[in-house]
Amino acid sequence: MRVTVLQENLARGLGIVSRAVSPRSTLPVLANILIASDEGRLRLSATNLELGITAWINAKVEEEGSTTVPARTFSDLVNTLPGDQVELKLESETQTLHIKSGASNNDVKGIDAQEFPPLAVPDMEGAIQLNVVDFKEMIHQVAFAASNDEARPVLMGVLVTVTGDQIVMASADGFRLSVRKATLSAAVAEPIHAIIPARALNELARIAGDGNDMVSMVAPKGRGQVIFRVKDAELVSQLIDGSFPDYEQIIPRSYKSRTLVSTATLLKACKQAEIFAREGTNVVRLDIKTAANDMEPSEVEISAQSEETGSNETIVEATVDGIGLLIAFNVKFLREVLEIIKSPNVAIETSAPNAPGVIRPVGDDDFTHVIMPMHLG
Amino acid sequence: MRVTVLQENLARGLGIVSRAVSPRSTLPVLANILIASDEGRLRLSATNLELGITAWINAKVEEEGSTTVPARTFSDLVNTLPGDQVELKLESETQTLHIKSGASNNDVKGIDAQEFPPLAVPDMEGAIQLNVVDFKEMIHQVAFAASNDEARPVLMGVLVTVTGDQIVMASADGFRLSVRKATLSAAVAEPIHAIIPARALNELARIAGDGNDMVSMVAPKGRGQVIFRVKDAELVSQLIDGSFPDYEQIIPRSYKSRTLVSTATLLKACKQAEIFAREGTNVVRLDIKTAANDMEPSEVEISAQSEETGSNETIVEATVDGIGLLIAFNVKFLREVLEIIKSPNVAIETSAPNAPGVIRPVGDDDFTHVIMPMHLG
Repeated sequence: MRVTVLQENLARGLGIVSRAVSPRSTLPVLANILIASDEGRLRLSATNLELGITAWINAKVEEEGSTTVPARTFSDLVNTLPGDQVELKLESETQTLHIKSGASNNDVKGIDAQEFPPLAVPDMEGAIQLNVVDFKEMIHQVAFAASNDEARPVLMGVLVTVTGDQIVMASADGFRLSVRKATLSAAVAEPIHAIIPARALNELARIAGDGNDMVSMVAPKGRGQVIFRVKDAELVSQLIDGSFPDYEQIIPRSYKSRTLVSTATLLKACKQAEIFAREGTNVVRLDIKTAANDMEPSEVEISAQSEETGSNETIVEATVDGIGLLIAFNVKFLREVLEIIKSPNVAIETSAPNAPGVIRPVGDDDFTHVIMPMHLG
Repeated sequence: MRVTVLQENLARGLGIVSRAVSPRSTLPVLANILIASDEGRLRLSATNLELGITAWINAKVEEEGSTTVPARTFSDLVNTLPGDQVELKLESETQTLHIKSGASNNDVKGIDAQEFPPLAVPDMEGAIQLNVVDFKEMIHQVAFAASNDEARPVLMGVLVTVTGDQIVMASADGFRLSVRKATLSAAVAEPIHAIIPARALNELARIAGDGNDMVSMVAPKGRGQVIFRVKDAELVSQLIDGSFPDYEQIIPRSYKSRTLVSTATLLKACKQAEIFAREGTNVVRLDIKTAANDMEPSEVEISAQSEETGSNETIVEATVDGIGLLIAFNVKFLREVLEIIKSPNVAIETSAPNAPGVIRPVGDDDFTHVIMPMHLG
């Protein structure tokens, strides 16, 4: 292999793939990045066997070939190279990659590309397509609510369902549920029902870029994999086996109390409550108070207390439809959902102190979040 | 106590003092910040018994008083308060500090100010004065070379010597030595000779601000303390007992080889060498080559290698005065000194592969850095 690339492009490509590197694997080649000439471009790939990322960059290919090099050494090196141009030359016999840029000459010890796990060569026919911005927003609004608990792998994933022209992402960790719907520009022929690791979706959001690009997604039948393609990059993830909880039945169909408040004001009050709540049981109380008469405004009193450090309360103006009540939530969960809601106002729907709370952005029917209540001490 | 302050000022003041808080001390009050009315201002103090920082902020004092509150709770709270104005009101009996801002009401449990260690009330008469910018640069160029090894406390400090109108800071960790001199605007009556913890100086540099302010410094005889005052803040540090090595004798008085190179180019070459050197013994080799004849340039070849990942070399143009030789240094030490040298060119002086190397910024006689060589493998 002998190729010349721009330092800037190589650094960007390595930034994309390096998050899939597995530095502490028992398989040494997984700590490496695959570098291969590929139809006039340079292909970079990394995988931890669950997640694989590939990026292509422009290159002047003088001699075809491939190898793998230690990810951290190679990335750090490329980031400090002095010149605009980087020459990569492989000495096949020793698998030494010679990297030259300006007055800097480097020999990096590689491992034969044959030892690198083969990556899926996807057939993107019939792929669903979604605008990058929309796709990233869906991920942003759902993936955070997935579980970190390795004991329940299914909940570490996001259920992605595509039927007709509807796509739905859902995640749940046993205490909360986040659901986001969107409409595709074209209907799919075959429905998709796949549990994708939340981590893979977060990486996808990171590498997907901005602007008007499209994300393509395929989940070939029986392969247990999902493949995403964005401009100049591809991400392959293993799917999670198992059956996702029937989340529709968790979403309450009615409410006895609906409270409208400013998203930003409620978020700020939650952040303050969290300063005290985090010292103890993470409980924030919402005292939803209906107005005594039509002339007065309704309000919500947000409060928290800690044995150690003290207590606080914030009064937030609200529009309450239905009954007033006192309900408690895990303050972290309430803060996290408020952080990803963009609409200026948010609705909290509930029916009783021991019934789930439903959080909805006002004016956006595509997002629903459910939080289980906590016991009032 | 009853005072009103601007949220912004309170947040800034807490930012200044909070680095001296000792959150995991056996003395709970050291995890708190002292808040006290003080001649029409609010005084904030924190101490870990070795280092104490005080800041004053403007306040409307309606009732005098003082208390101490948990640093983290109070700082986090102030940073999230919704309003511009913050009212602080102490309920003395329970030592509860009531904090009100906008619609947010908070009660923070305090500890009586009587339990807070008394802070030095310094007499700043005869203080030495130095421009903030110069003082920060001196700290920046010296403190990094102090040791982290608790077994040799003296080397964790910076020796500050003031005689006449000369101030010298020096630090050494057994492998390197950093010395910086400056001239005061006025001569001092009594010489000062104090070993100040590097950490205290780093904190001073952090809180000292920018611009044309002055730093005042006193080291009252027999108190074992040094006190620095900058605009609206004060830092008190215990001095380190013991005798500092006679560093003057470590600085070579002559050289057989003096190499001039571009600081930025050599730094870049060191950073690249470090990528390989860090995998092994941190050795970077400098092969200083004199020109074969007057028509050719001299050069330095900077190289490093690792058993695991590979090797590199960079050739840097140089002006060599004297003999050529091959010498090895700890690459981290060489990088760190190059990072704090501002002059475009740097001189490396040495006499033999086993003699110390002296690094000097070209055109600045006030800074000297010595690095012990490493064995050539």
